[in-house]
Amino acid sequence: MSSAVSPLAPTEVPDMPVIAGVRLATAAAGIRYKGRTDVLLAIMDKGTNAAGVFTQSKCPSAPVEWCRAQLKGAGSSKGLARALVVNSGNANAFTGKTGRQATTLTASIAAKAVGCKPNEVFLASTGVIGEPLDATKFDGVLGTLAESAAPADWMSAARAIMTTDTFPKVATATVKLGKAKVTINGMAKGAGMIAPDMATMLSFVFTDAPLSSAVLQSLLKSGVQDTFNALTIDSDTSTSDTLLAFATGTAAANGAPKITRASDPRLKAFTKAFRAVLADLAEQVARDGEGARKLVEVIVEGATTSISARRIAMSIANSPLVKTAIAGEDANWGRVVMAVGKAGEPANRDKLSISFNGIRVAKSGARDPSYNEAEVSEAMKAPKIQIKVSLGLGKGRDRVLTCDLTKEYVAINGDYRS
Amino acid sequence: MSSAVSPLAPTEVPDMPVIAGVRLATAAAGIRYKGRTDVLLAIMDKGTNAAGVFTQSKCPSAPVEWCRAQLKGAGSSKGLARALVVNSGNANAFTGKTGRQATTLTASIAAKAVGCKPNEVFLASTGVIGEPLDATKFDGVLGTLAESAAPADWMSAARAIMTTDTFPKVATATVKLGKAKVTINGMAKGAGMIAPDMATMLSFVFTDAPLSSAVLQSLLKSGVQDTFNALTIDSDTSTSDTLLAFATGTAAANGAPKITRASDPRLKAFTKAFRAVLADLAEQVARDGEGARKLVEVIVEGATTSISARRIAMSIANSPLVKTAIAGEDANWGRVVMAVGKAGEPANRDKLSISFNGIRVAKSGARDPSYNEAEVSEAMKAPKIQIKVSLGLGKGRDRVLTCDLTKEYVAINGDYRS
Repeated sequence: MSSAVSPLAPTEVPDMPVIAGVRLATAAAGIRYKGRTDVLLAIMDKGTNAAGVFTQSKCPSAPVEWCRAQLKGAGSSKGLARALVVNSGNANAFTGKTGRQATTLTASIAAKAVGCKPNEVFLASTGVIGEPLDATKFDGVLGTLAESAAPADWMSAARAIMTTDTFPKVATATVKLGKAKVTINGMAKGAGMIAPDMATMLSFVFTDAPLSSAVLQSLLKSGVQDTFNALTIDSDTSTSDTLLAFATGTAAANGAPKITRASDPRLKAFTKAFRAVLADLAEQVARDGEGARKLVEVIVEGATTSISARRIAMSIANSPLVKTAIAGEDANWGRVVMAVGKAGEPANRDKLSISFNGIRVAKSGARDPSYNEAEVSEAMKAPKIQIKVSLGLGKGRDRVLTCDLTKEYVAINGDYRS
Repeated sequence: MSSAVSPLAPTEVPDMPVIAGVRLATAAAGIRYKGRTDVLLAIMDKGTNAAGVFTQSKCPSAPVEWCRAQLKGAGSSKGLARALVVNSGNANAFTGKTGRQATTLTASIAAKAVGCKPNEVFLASTGVIGEPLDATKFDGVLGTLAESAAPADWMSAARAIMTTDTFPKVATATVKLGKAKVTINGMAKGAGMIAPDMATMLSFVFTDAPLSSAVLQSLLKSGVQDTFNALTIDSDTSTSDTLLAFATGTAAANGAPKITRASDPRLKAFTKAFRAVLADLAEQVARDGEGARKLVEVIVEGATTSISARRIAMSIANSPLVKTAIAGEDANWGRVVMAVGKAGEPANRDKLSISFNGIRVAKSGARDPSYNEAEVSEAMKAPKIQIKVSLGLGKGRDRVLTCDLTKEYVAINGDYRS
């Protein structure tokens, strides 16, 4: 395991404000790790609404299925949340019937500790796959956590959900909703997608804004499109990826209006701030990609459509040859051409232009006449590399974040047994 | 650059027989490499028919476009071949108008040297992308080669087309066509897909069987499906991948029947042998994957269709996390589940079974009750690893070859500048 903090870690950590109606507590339950916290309990006040987006994997983990069921749930409990239990060290994925039993047991232990219904409990697990999760370990622990839960310690919460992450990831925004001030706090974990000690992407966002579950779901759905869904570390998709949002509605006491329609014009500033929190967290995940030494931003413009631009950008961002070239500080635009070509999307070789960190290296399907290797090589030493591809076909544009592919990635994911 | 021969290289090299009507010669033209051969000229007798399959890249190289045009070509020259010129060191890809001019010039120099029409000349280039290819370097060289060309030296030919390959790749088969003995000789190069010194997949197959161009094309198209098209090193697709086949028809003199329909029943044994040559070459390419230490065979069965099985097998074979686990000699079936899940194809987690080298590790969506870590760990030390996934849904089955992902791959593709 790599223990050094990623060189791309943010240099400043935001001061995380309290969100009324949210209390947090962490503990070391010894699920897999020794000497570190591995369980997070978040308790939300009555009236908290929830929403979520999940992995597209056809083999989702038991907690993902649990959360989906609670959000779909019938009657008055639908989309209501009183507790969130997150554990690291064991993903409770591919554990068969035992896995489903573990989620049911965890939710009932949490419900008892918090004083709510089991279907008001949300669950997320990250860690090894295929190892049965002993949910009885939560017995006692969650009761103690419920007693000690306090509004303040967001950094400890972010730390408890880490696996191969090298730094905790938090983001915050404060914005006006109507005339009242509302707050959005988020935390995330990432690193690879799945790893020996597992590196699923988990993220949890909390706000005191009085938003209905449907509004929150709409915000999430549109918010992830250009943030978490425009992010790739290694093209591998976890069975457990989970992004949950909770709105306590406590800001209503300060005069914040209740929002029940996603099209409500009063939601404009909030939507922007919510998206910014997701974007901040997603970028931190890219900055903590396993073995990453460079943050890579891929911009594709001039595609026939924005969907086509996204596919081409993902093809570039997922190419091992592009990623190893970046690791080698080489502006290897030939590999970018290769990745454009293999995407299967409309592209005309003779209209392609490519630039690295603003320096154009290829133009109209050939090396740029003004290409200066020394200048480009210098630019490639920067910790953040922007690859911009102009296809010259239409107005489709998109942006994707990734990181480079280093020997350290292979070491983290291949050497762990030795 | 890695110079040691891959530990997965075949221990025996076949004795390559002469094919009447094919003469070969190699030279060091100094296109990029120093002190090694980098040009191959193959001269075929009049009446030789050609066929080819090429990269699906939307940004193909100039030689790929040249070959496609010759195979489509109008009138009496269509599908006729008298010469093949292959160079390593420069791919003549993404070189704009200059690239097209270079192919035209190379073909006309070769035509003059061999005494044929330029549209009877086939071209393939492999090497750096975006660097203009100075085709005038072929002037003189090809004339000398035409004079010295001789039927015998297939190993030298295979060596001249290498880039990051660590061993030359040849295969041969002798089979009856009618009552006559006919021969099939093939050579290939591979390694990664594109690399600093380039690692496009090129392959050339020659036979003395009297086959029409259409028959040869049909053999190629069906032959690649489960061989070269079922092979992935790093998911990256070269702009220059080329597989050409040439039939001199000289075996007609020994009584081999002329075959003009792909459905001709006399072609049965030949078809099988032709496919075996392609399979042999494709496996050698996997065995020489950049940095490879393990040959990996992925078998997916029980899928809803064979197309679905191929997609799931490719998702597993291309997963960096599966490939690094194999490099680490870990039977990490959780990552296999992940790769099945991300393929987007029908899969039922609770019906999945997975085995490594015949040892079942997961069954019905959970760890196999008889799982024995020591036994599996021992099996993972083998140089060839078979991952078998049973989906339990239908009769779709497929097989894909790949290799592991090692630090050496990253070094080959990322460290070349330092």
